Amino acid sequence: MGASAKRRSTPHVQQKRKERRAAILHAALSAFREQGFHATSLDDIAARLGVRNTALYYYFADKDALLYECHRESLAELERMIEASAACCESPEERLAYLLREHVRIMTDTLEGSPLAFEVPALSPKRRAAIVAGRDRYEQLLRKLISAGIAAGAFRAVNPKVVVFAMLGSINWIARWYQPGGRMNAGELGQQFADYLIAGLK
Amino acid sequence: MGASAKRRSTPHVQQKRKERRAAILHAALSAFREQGFHATSLDDIAARLGVRNTALYYYFADKDALLYECHRESLAELERMIEASAACCESPEERLAYLLREHVRIMTDTLEGSPLAFEVPALSPKRRAAIVAGRDRYEQLLRKLISAGIAAGAFRAVNPKVVVFAMLGSINWIARWYQPGGRMNAGELGQQFADYLIAGLK
Repeated sequence: MGASAKRRSTPHVQQKRKERRAAILHAALSAFREQGFHATSLDDIAARLGVRNTALYYYFADKDALLYECHRESLAELERMIEASAACCESPEERLAYLLREHVRIMTDTLEGSPLAFEVPALSPKRRAAIVAGRDRYEQLLRKLISAGIAAGAFRAVNPKVVVFAMLGSINWIARWYQPGGRMNAGELGQQFADYLIAGLK
Repeated sequence: MGASAKRRSTPHVQQKRKERRAAILHAALSAFREQGFHATSLDDIAARLGVRNTALYYYFADKDALLYECHRESLAELERMIEASAACCESPEERLAYLLREHVRIMTDTLEGSPLAFEVPALSPKRRAAIVAGRDRYEQLLRKLISAGIAAGAFRAVNPKVVVFAMLGSINWIARWYQPGGRMNAGELGQQFADYLIAGLK
């Protein structure tokens, strides 16, 4: 689809395309969670949506493009969360707690437990670099907040780099055990993770 | 190789075979770490060892068998560590600290940061069940130690299930960032992880 075709489409058609695109991303995340990324084909995703795979190719050229878009959307949500954390919270500890809680919510709600963070190595090198850069900014912010908390006397002297790896590992691992719609309450989960991961700094 | 062929081989030949087998497992773990499990072929592993792939097939029928053996060996080491922890440590807290420290050591030294825990879904169903059962025993023990620590007043009232998932996630994630021979000291890493993950229980 060229840019001129896009310009000609009515708002109604544009809205339909946006919805279809979101439905494809949603079906892809479910498939990656249930079958694993490597075992999932574009045909599987088309079958889940009850459409032909040519309808899928209209939106995404291949599985790599689809995986990249899933990553981009979840990183965009991470960016919004980082901005919100700057507005809401005063102390490094409050801001850190907010970020950890919201990050868990992205894992359980947006990604529905899909193991996206595990599949960064599957991206093509150029796309991988873009995703890793976004992820690095987030890691740097978490380290900075821990260092600021140590400097303010709110946290004990830990190695911020090691602790941030531990925090991100524990949250990314949620994709390995979380069942959407299961007994675990997603809201409580974020609170429990934030409590535990911050208590380790005291 | 039939059992009778095994019986006929001299101790020297047996020792050679054992060493070759260990070398194959070692090369496989390095390849999985550097190239990713899905992108690694048996030919890649043979090339790393400078042998023909038929030499590899003598020991392992396929990549699934090789992955299973890597898992079995690391679970066996986990079992030894669990036994040692029962002998060495009195309180639930001491035993938990020992297990977390040793688990990190298995990740950095035995597995050399190879992402084995990520590749459980890649195993065939029967083999997967055996590995998951071994892993479950370990998870149950960690939960039991946390519950015992809570009962004894050493730990605050957390949800042991959630905390054990967080602990295992943080340790398994080491495979995503750890560089063998890098600047991070493996011994210190185990201590830092155990400190941080147990401090979260206080």
